[in-house]
Amino acid sequence: MRLSELSSETGVSTASLKYYLREALLGPGEPVTKTQSEYGAAHVERVRLIRALVDSGGLSLGQVRRVLDALDSPTVPRHDLLGTAQEALTESTGFDEDPEWTTRAADFIAGRGWRIQDGDVLVPQLGAQLKALVESCDVGGAETLERWADAAEQVAAADLDTLTDDDAQALRTAVVGTVLSDKVLQTLRRLAQQNRTAQLYDGA
Amino acid sequence: MRLSELSSETGVSTASLKYYLREALLGPGEPVTKTQSEYGAAHVERVRLIRALVDSGGLSLGQVRRVLDALDSPTVPRHDLLGTAQEALTESTGFDEDPEWTTRAADFIAGRGWRIQDGDVLVPQLGAQLKALVESCDVGGAETLERWADAAEQVAAADLDTLTDDDAQALRTAVVGTVLSDKVLQTLRRLAQQNRTAQLYDGA
Repeated sequence: MRLSELSSETGVSTASLKYYLREALLGPGEPVTKTQSEYGAAHVERVRLIRALVDSGGLSLGQVRRVLDALDSPTVPRHDLLGTAQEALTESTGFDEDPEWTTRAADFIAGRGWRIQDGDVLVPQLGAQLKALVESCDVGGAETLERWADAAEQVAAADLDTLTDDDAQALRTAVVGTVLSDKVLQTLRRLAQQNRTAQLYDGA
Repeated sequence: MRLSELSSETGVSTASLKYYLREALLGPGEPVTKTQSEYGAAHVERVRLIRALVDSGGLSLGQVRRVLDALDSPTVPRHDLLGTAQEALTESTGFDEDPEWTTRAADFIAGRGWRIQDGDVLVPQLGAQLKALVESCDVGGAETLERWADAAEQVAAADLDTLTDDDAQALRTAVVGTVLSDKVLQTLRRLAQQNRTAQLYDGA
Protein backbone atom coordinates (compact mmCIF):
# COMPACT_ATOMS: atom_id res chain seq x y z
CA MET A 1 0.00 0.00 0.00
CA ARG A 2 1.05 3.62 -0.51
CA LEU A 3 1.68 6.10 2.30
CA SER A 4 -1.82 7.56 1.96
CA GLU A 5 -3.31 4.08 2.39
CA LEU A 6 -1.08 3.39 5.40
CA SER A 7 -2.49 6.62 6.78
CA SER A 8 -6.15 5.67 6.28
CA GLU A 9 -5.48 2.10 7.50
CA THR A 10 -3.97 3.34 10.78
CA GLY A 11 -5.74 6.66 11.26
CA VAL A 12 -2.38 8.44 11.54
CA SER A 13 -1.78 11.52 9.36
CA THR A 14 0.73 11.30 6.50
CA ALA A 15 2.63 14.17 8.13
CA SER A 16 3.11 12.06 11.28
CA LEU A 17 4.04 8.99 9.22
CA LYS A 18 6.68 11.00 7.35
CA TYR A 19 8.01 12.17 10.70
CA TYR A 20 8.25 8.56 11.95
CA LEU A 21 10.09 7.59 8.73
CA ARG A 22 12.48 10.54 9.03
CA GLU A 23 13.20 9.66 12.67
CA ALA A 24 13.58 5.96 11.76
CA LEU A 25 10.90 4.91 14.24
CA LEU A 26 9.30 3.32 11.17
CA GLY A 27 11.46 1.45 8.66
CA PRO A 28 11.45 2.54 5.01
CA GLY A 29 9.02 1.01 2.51
CA GLU A 30 9.93 -0.77 -0.71
CA PRO A 31 10.78 1.94 -3.28
CA VAL A 32 8.43 1.81 -6.29
CA THR A 33 9.24 5.05 -8.05
CA LYS A 34 11.67 7.83 -7.20
CA THR A 35 9.10 9.44 -4.89
CA GLN A 36 6.82 6.56 -3.88
CA SER A 37 7.25 3.49 -1.71
CA GLU A 38 5.16 0.46 -0.95
CA TYR A 39 4.29 -0.37 2.69
CA GLY A 40 3.12 -3.67 4.13
CA ALA A 41 1.45 -5.30 7.12
CA ALA A 42 4.60 -4.90 9.23
CA HIS A 43 4.35 -1.14 8.77
CA VAL A 44 0.72 -1.13 9.86
CA GLU A 45 1.61 -3.09 12.97
CA ARG A 46 4.57 -0.84 13.80
CA VAL A 47 2.50 2.34 13.40
CA ARG A 48 -0.21 0.91 15.69
CA LEU A 49 2.43 0.03 18.27
CA ILE A 50 3.86 3.56 18.19
CA ARG A 51 0.37 5.05 18.64
CA ALA A 52 -0.48 2.66 21.49
CA LEU A 53 2.73 3.59 23.31
CA VAL A 54 2.10 7.31 22.83
CA ASP A 55 -1.69 7.49 23.26
CA SER A 56 -2.35 4.77 25.82
CA GLY A 57 1.07 4.47 27.41
CA GLY A 58 1.72 8.20 27.65
CA LEU A 59 5.31 7.80 26.43
CA SER A 60 7.28 10.59 24.78
CA LEU A 61 8.65 9.87 21.29
CA GLY A 62 12.10 9.64 22.92
CA GLN A 63 10.89 6.84 25.17
CA VAL A 64 9.13 5.19 22.23
CA ARG A 65 12.46 5.18 20.40
CA ARG A 66 14.19 3.43 23.32
CA VAL A 67 11.39 0.86 23.54
CA LEU A 68 11.55 0.16 19.78
CA ASP A 69 15.36 -0.05 19.88
CA ALA A 70 15.04 -2.67 22.62
CA LEU A 71 12.49 -4.61 20.55
CA ASP A 72 14.65 -4.40 17.42
CA SER A 73 17.86 -5.51 19.13
CA PRO A 74 19.16 -9.06 18.67
CA THR A 75 17.70 -11.63 21.01
CA VAL A 76 18.00 -10.65 24.64
CA PRO A 77 18.72 -13.39 27.19
CA ARG A 78 15.48 -14.50 28.75
CA HIS A 79 16.38 -13.54 32.32
CA ASP A 80 17.19 -10.08 31.04
CA LEU A 81 13.88 -9.44 29.26
CA LEU A 82 12.33 -7.34 31.97
CA GLY A 83 15.62 -5.60 32.70
CA THR A 84 15.78 -4.51 29.06
CA ALA A 85 12.19 -3.36 29.26
CA GLN A 86 12.90 -1.43 32.43
CA GLU A 87 15.98 0.20 30.99
CA ALA A 88 14.01 1.39 27.97
CA LEU A 89 11.39 2.86 30.26
CA THR A 90 13.56 4.48 32.90
CA GLU A 91 12.59 8.11 33.18
CA SER A 92 14.90 10.18 31.02
CA THR A 93 14.18 13.27 33.09
CA GLY A 94 16.24 12.02 36.01
CA PHE A 95 15.57 12.77 39.66
CA ASP A 96 17.38 14.25 42.61
CA GLU A 97 19.14 11.40 44.34
CA ASP A 98 19.16 11.70 48.13
CA PRO A 99 21.71 9.33 49.71
CA GLU A 100 19.71 9.00 52.92
CA TRP A 101 16.54 7.98 51.02
CA THR A 102 18.51 5.68 48.72
CA THR A 103 19.71 3.86 51.83
CA ARG A 104 16.16 3.66 53.19
CA ALA A 105 14.94 2.24 49.86
CA ALA A 106 17.80 -0.28 49.79
CA ASP A 107 17.06 -1.33 53.38
CA PHE A 108 13.39 -1.78 52.56
CA ILE A 109 14.22 -3.95 49.52
CA ALA A 110 16.68 -6.01 51.56
CA GLY A 111 14.05 -6.40 54.29
CA ARG A 112 11.64 -7.84 51.71
CA GLY A 113 14.34 -10.26 50.59
CA TRP A 114 14.03 -9.05 47.01
CA ARG A 115 16.94 -9.97 44.74
CA ILE A 116 17.88 -6.86 42.75
CA GLN A 117 20.89 -6.09 40.56
CA ASP A 118 23.70 -4.27 42.37
CA GLY A 119 23.63 -0.56 41.64
CA ASP A 120 20.22 -0.69 39.97
CA VAL A 121 18.90 2.79 39.25
CA LEU A 122 15.47 1.70 40.51
CA VAL A 123 16.76 1.83 44.10
CA PRO A 124 17.66 5.56 44.22
CA GLN A 125 14.55 6.21 42.08
CA LEU A 126 12.35 4.52 44.69
CA GLY A 127 14.13 6.55 47.38
CA ALA A 128 13.44 9.83 45.59
CA GLN A 129 9.77 8.89 45.05
CA LEU A 130 9.31 7.94 48.69
CA LYS A 131 10.95 11.16 49.79
CA ALA A 132 8.55 13.21 47.64
CA LEU A 133 5.59 11.23 48.95
CA VAL A 134 6.47 11.43 52.64
CA GLU A 135 7.44 15.10 52.50
CA SER A 136 4.30 16.16 50.60
CA CYS A 137 1.74 14.29 52.63
CA ASP A 138 1.56 11.87 55.48
CA VAL A 139 1.56 8.75 53.33
CA GLY A 140 4.10 6.03 52.69
CA GLY A 141 4.79 4.92 56.24
CA ALA A 142 6.31 1.52 56.88
CA GLU A 143 3.04 -0.40 57.12
CA THR A 144 1.54 1.10 53.95
CA LEU A 145 4.75 0.41 52.08
CA GLU A 146 4.73 -3.25 53.12
CA ARG A 147 1.13 -3.63 51.96
CA TRP A 148 1.94 -2.00 48.62
CA ALA A 149 4.94 -4.30 48.26
CA ASP A 150 2.73 -7.34 48.95
CA ALA A 151 0.46 -6.19 46.12
CA ALA A 152 3.45 -5.52 43.83
CA GLU A 153 4.65 -9.10 44.39
CA GLN A 154 1.25 -10.42 43.29
CA VAL A 155 1.27 -8.22 40.20
CA ALA A 156 4.80 -9.29 39.30
CA ALA A 157 3.92 -12.98 39.68
CA ALA A 158 0.97 -12.48 37.32
CA ASP A 159 3.20 -10.52 34.93
CA LEU A 160 5.84 -13.23 34.69
CA ASP A 161 3.19 -15.88 34.06
CA THR A 162 2.08 -14.02 30.92
CA LEU A 163 5.46 -14.39 29.21
CA THR A 164 5.36 -16.96 26.44
CA ASP A 165 8.13 -19.34 25.42
CA ASP A 166 8.84 -17.41 22.21
CA ASP A 167 11.65 -15.03 23.17
CA ALA A 168 10.92 -12.30 20.62
CA GLN A 169 7.24 -12.30 21.54
CA ALA A 170 8.12 -12.37 25.24
CA LEU A 171 10.27 -9.25 24.94
CA ARG A 172 7.48 -7.43 23.16
CA THR A 173 5.05 -8.56 25.84
CA ALA A 174 7.39 -7.49 28.62
CA VAL A 175 8.11 -4.05 27.20
CA VAL A 176 4.79 -3.07 25.68
CA GLY A 177 2.76 -4.92 28.27
CA THR A 178 4.49 -3.16 31.15
CA VAL A 179 3.92 0.29 29.65
CA LEU A 180 0.28 -0.23 28.83
CA SER A 181 -0.63 -2.23 31.90
CA ASP A 182 0.83 0.43 34.22
CA LYS A 183 -2.16 2.49 33.09
CA VAL A 184 -4.60 -0.38 33.57
CA LEU A 185 -3.30 -0.91 37.10
CA GLN A 186 -3.69 2.81 37.87
CA THR A 187 -7.30 2.70 36.74
CA LEU A 188 -8.00 -0.51 38.67
CA ARG A 189 -6.58 1.17 41.78
CA ARG A 190 -8.93 4.16 41.34
CA LEU A 191 -11.92 1.86 40.86
CA ALA A 192 -10.98 -0.27 43.85
CA GLN A 193 -10.59 2.91 45.93
CA GLN A 194 -14.13 3.93 44.96
CA ASN A 195 -15.43 0.52 45.91
CA ARG A 196 -13.57 0.55 49.21
CA THR A 197 -14.88 4.05 49.96
CA ALA A 198 -18.44 2.85 49.30
CA GLN A 199 -17.85 -0.10 51.63
CA LEU A 200 -16.46 2.06 54.42
CA TYR A 201 -18.72 5.11 54.29
CA ASP A 202 -21.99 4.06 52.72
CA GLY A 203 -22.34 0.97 54.88
CA ALA A 204 -21.82 -2.00 52.59
CA MET B 1 10.85 36.82 52.59
CA ARG B 2 11.26 38.38 49.14
CA LEU B 3 10.78 36.54 45.86
CA SER B 4 14.54 35.97 45.53
CA GLU B 5 14.59 34.34 48.97
CA LEU B 6 11.55 32.21 48.12
CA SER B 7 13.56 31.14 45.08
CA SER B 8 16.67 30.15 47.05
CA GLU B 9 14.55 28.50 49.78
CA THR B 10 12.72 26.27 47.25
CA GLY B 11 15.33 25.93 44.53
CA VAL B 12 12.82 27.17 41.94
CA SER B 13 13.89 30.03 39.63
CA THR B 14 12.29 33.46 40.06
CA ALA B 15 11.10 33.22 36.45
CA SER B 16 9.14 30.06 37.31
CA LEU B 17 7.81 31.62 40.52
CA LYS B 18 6.59 34.66 38.57
CA TYR B 19 4.89 32.29 36.14
CA TYR B 20 3.13 30.46 39.01
CA LEU B 21 1.99 33.83 40.41
CA ARG B 22 0.73 35.00 37.00
CA GLU B 23 -1.17 31.73 36.52
CA ALA B 24 -2.52 31.92 40.08
CA LEU B 25 -1.08 28.51 40.98
CA LEU B 26 0.62 30.44 43.78
CA GLY B 27 -1.29 33.08 45.72
CA PRO B 28 0.03 36.68 45.81
CA GLY B 29 2.35 37.82 48.59
CA GLU B 30 1.78 40.71 50.99
CA PRO B 31 2.61 43.93 49.06
CA VAL B 32 5.48 45.85 50.67
CA THR B 33 6.32 48.40 48.01
CA LYS B 34 4.81 49.00 44.57
CA THR B 35 7.07 46.33 43.06
CA GLN B 36 7.89 44.06 46.00
CA SER B 37 5.91 41.57 48.05
CA GLU B 38 6.58 39.54 51.14
CA TYR B 39 6.14 35.76 51.04
CA GLY B 40 5.72 33.33 53.92
CA ALA B 41 5.89 29.68 54.94
CA ALA B 42 2.61 28.90 53.12
CA HIS B 43 4.23 30.01 49.87
CA VAL B 44 7.23 27.78 50.45
CA GLU B 45 4.94 24.83 51.09
CA ARG B 46 2.82 25.55 48.01
CA VAL B 47 5.86 25.85 45.74
CA ARG B 48 7.23 22.54 47.06
CA LEU B 49 3.87 20.90 46.41
CA ILE B 50 3.80 22.20 42.82
CA ARG B 51 7.33 20.90 42.21
CA ALA B 52 6.54 17.51 43.78
CA LEU B 53 3.48 17.13 41.53
CA VAL B 54 5.45 18.14 38.42
CA ASP B 55 8.81 16.48 39.10
CA SER B 56 7.82 13.34 41.00
CA GLY B 57 4.21 13.00 39.89
CA GLY B 58 4.84 13.79 36.24
CA LEU B 59 1.77 16.06 36.05
CA SER B 60 1.38 18.83 33.50
CA LEU B 61 0.80 22.35 34.87
CA GLY B 62 -2.82 22.00 33.70
CA GLN B 63 -3.27 18.92 35.89
CA VAL B 64 -1.48 20.66 38.76
CA ARG B 65 -4.01 23.48 38.47
CA ARG B 66 -6.93 21.03 38.74
CA VAL B 67 -5.34 19.33 41.74
CA LEU B 68 -4.73 22.67 43.49
CA ASP B 69 -8.27 23.84 42.68
CA ALA B 70 -9.59 20.69 44.33
CA LEU B 71 -7.41 21.28 47.39
CA ASP B 72 -8.46 24.93 47.62
CA SER B 73 -12.17 24.24 47.29
CA PRO B 74 -14.41 24.34 50.38
CA THR B 75 -14.60 21.14 52.37
CA VAL B 76 -15.49 18.15 50.26
CA PRO B 77 -17.74 15.49 51.81
CA ARG B 78 -15.62 12.71 53.17
CA HIS B 79 -17.05 9.97 50.96
CA ASP B 80 -16.24 12.15 47.97
CA LEU B 81 -12.58 12.76 48.79
CA LEU B 82 -11.18 10.20 46.42
CA GLY B 83 -13.75 11.05 43.76
CA THR B 84 -12.57 14.65 43.83
CA ALA B 85 -8.97 13.48 43.65
CA GLN B 86 -9.79 11.22 40.73
CA GLU B 87 -11.62 13.95 38.86
CA ALA B 88 -8.65 16.27 39.23
CA LEU B 89 -6.38 13.59 37.85
CA THR B 90 -8.47 12.24 35.00
CA GLU B 91 -6.43 12.41 31.83
CA SER B 92 -7.21 15.61 30.00
CA THR B 93 -6.01 14.12 26.73
CA GLY B 94 -9.07 11.93 26.42
CA PHE B 95 -9.17 8.53 24.77
CA ASP B 96 -11.05 6.77 22.00
CA GLU B 97 -14.06 5.18 23.61
CA ASP B 98 -14.97 1.80 22.15
CA PRO B 99 -18.50 0.71 23.19
CA GLU B 100 -17.63 -2.99 23.01
CA TRP B 101 -14.65 -2.55 25.34
CA THR B 102 -16.60 -0.26 27.66
CA THR B 103 -19.11 -3.08 28.06
CA ARG B 104 -16.33 -5.57 28.73
CA ALA B 105 -14.86 -3.27 31.38
CA ALA B 106 -18.29 -2.74 32.97
CA ASP B 107 -18.91 -6.50 33.01
CA PHE B 108 -15.55 -7.10 34.63
CA ILE B 109 -16.25 -4.51 37.34
CA ALA B 110 -19.71 -5.96 37.96
CA GLY B 111 -18.18 -9.44 38.14
CA ARG B 112 -15.85 -8.24 40.90
CA GLY B 113 -18.82 -6.78 42.77
CA TRP B 114 -17.19 -3.36 42.84
CA ARG B 115 -19.54 -0.46 43.60
CA ILE B 116 -18.80 2.33 41.14
CA GLN B 117 -20.69 5.55 40.34
CA ASP B 118 -23.06 5.24 37.37
CA GLY B 119 -21.55 6.67 34.24
CA ASP B 120 -18.09 6.99 35.76
CA VAL B 121 -15.51 7.92 33.13
CA LEU B 122 -13.11 5.37 34.63
CA VAL B 123 -15.15 2.56 33.06
CA PRO B 124 -14.71 3.55 29.38
CA GLN B 125 -11.14 4.57 30.26
CA LEU B 126 -10.41 1.07 31.56
CA GLY B 127 -12.02 -0.35 28.41
CA ALA B 128 -9.79 1.75 26.16
CA GLN B 129 -6.68 0.78 28.13
CA LEU B 130 -7.54 -2.91 28.00
CA LYS B 131 -8.19 -2.67 24.28
CA ALA B 132 -4.76 -1.09 23.70
CA LEU B 133 -3.12 -3.73 25.87
CA VAL B 134 -4.79 -6.75 24.32
CA GLU B 135 -4.36 -5.51 20.75
CA SER B 136 -0.68 -4.63 21.20
CA CYS B 137 0.47 -7.76 22.95
CA ASP B 138 -0.91 -10.95 24.31
CA VAL B 139 -1.45 -9.63 27.84
CA GLY B 140 -4.51 -8.76 29.84
CA GLY B 141 -6.44 -12.00 29.58
CA ALA B 142 -9.15 -12.77 32.10
CA GLU B 143 -6.92 -14.54 34.62
CA THR B 144 -4.23 -11.84 34.63
CA LEU B 145 -6.88 -9.17 35.01
CA GLU B 146 -8.39 -10.90 38.05
CA ARG B 147 -4.97 -11.17 39.67
CA TRP B 148 -4.27 -7.49 39.02
CA ALA B 149 -7.67 -6.60 40.47
CA ASP B 150 -6.90 -8.65 43.60
CA ALA B 151 -3.73 -6.60 44.01
CA ALA B 152 -5.60 -3.34 43.33
CA GLU B 153 -8.05 -4.20 46.12
CA GLN B 154 -5.16 -4.64 48.56
CA VAL B 155 -3.62 -1.34 47.50
CA ALA B 156 -6.95 0.48 47.84
CA ALA B 157 -7.53 -0.95 51.32
CA ALA B 158 -4.07 0.29 52.37
CA ASP B 159 -4.80 3.66 50.73
CA LEU B 160 -8.05 4.21 52.61
CA ASP B 161 -6.40 3.31 55.90
CA THR B 162 -3.93 6.18 55.45
CA LEU B 163 -6.67 8.84 55.48
CA THR B 164 -6.72 10.80 58.72
CA ASP B 165 -9.76 12.19 60.51
CA ASP B 166 -8.91 15.78 59.55
CA ASP B 167 -10.87 16.38 56.33
CA ALA B 168 -8.61 19.05 54.82
CA GLN B 169 -5.54 16.93 55.47
CA ALA B 170 -7.33 13.84 54.17
CA LEU B 171 -8.12 15.51 50.85
CA ARG B 172 -4.50 16.56 50.46
CA THR B 173 -3.41 13.04 51.30
CA ALA B 174 -5.88 11.54 48.85
CA VAL B 175 -4.98 13.81 45.95
CA VAL B 176 -1.25 14.26 46.38
CA GLY B 177 -0.73 10.81 47.80
CA THR B 178 -2.44 9.15 44.85
CA VAL B 179 -0.36 11.04 42.29
CA LEU B 180 2.96 10.44 43.98
CA SER B 181 2.30 6.88 45.09
CA ASP B 182 1.31 5.83 41.56
CA LYS B 183 5.00 6.28 40.78
CA VAL B 184 6.08 4.39 43.90
CA LEU B 185 3.82 1.49 42.94
CA GLN B 186 5.24 1.43 39.40
CA THR B 187 8.76 1.22 40.79
CA LEU B 188 7.79 -1.48 43.32
CA ARG B 189 6.29 -3.46 40.44
CA ARG B 190 9.55 -3.25 38.46
CA LEU B 191 11.57 -4.32 41.49
CA ALA B 192 9.22 -7.19 42.26
CA GLN B 193 9.41 -8.29 38.60
CA GLN B 194 13.21 -8.40 38.89
CA ASN B 195 12.98 -10.43 42.05
CA ARG B 196 10.45 -12.81 40.51
CA THR B 197 12.66 -13.21 37.42
CA ALA B 198 15.60 -14.07 39.66
CA GLN B 199 13.46 -16.64 41.49
CA LEU B 200 12.22 -18.25 38.28
CA TYR B 201 15.33 -18.25 36.10
CA ASP B 202 18.35 -18.16 38.39
CA GLY B 203 17.09 -20.89 40.67
CA ALA B 204 16.16 -19.23 43.94
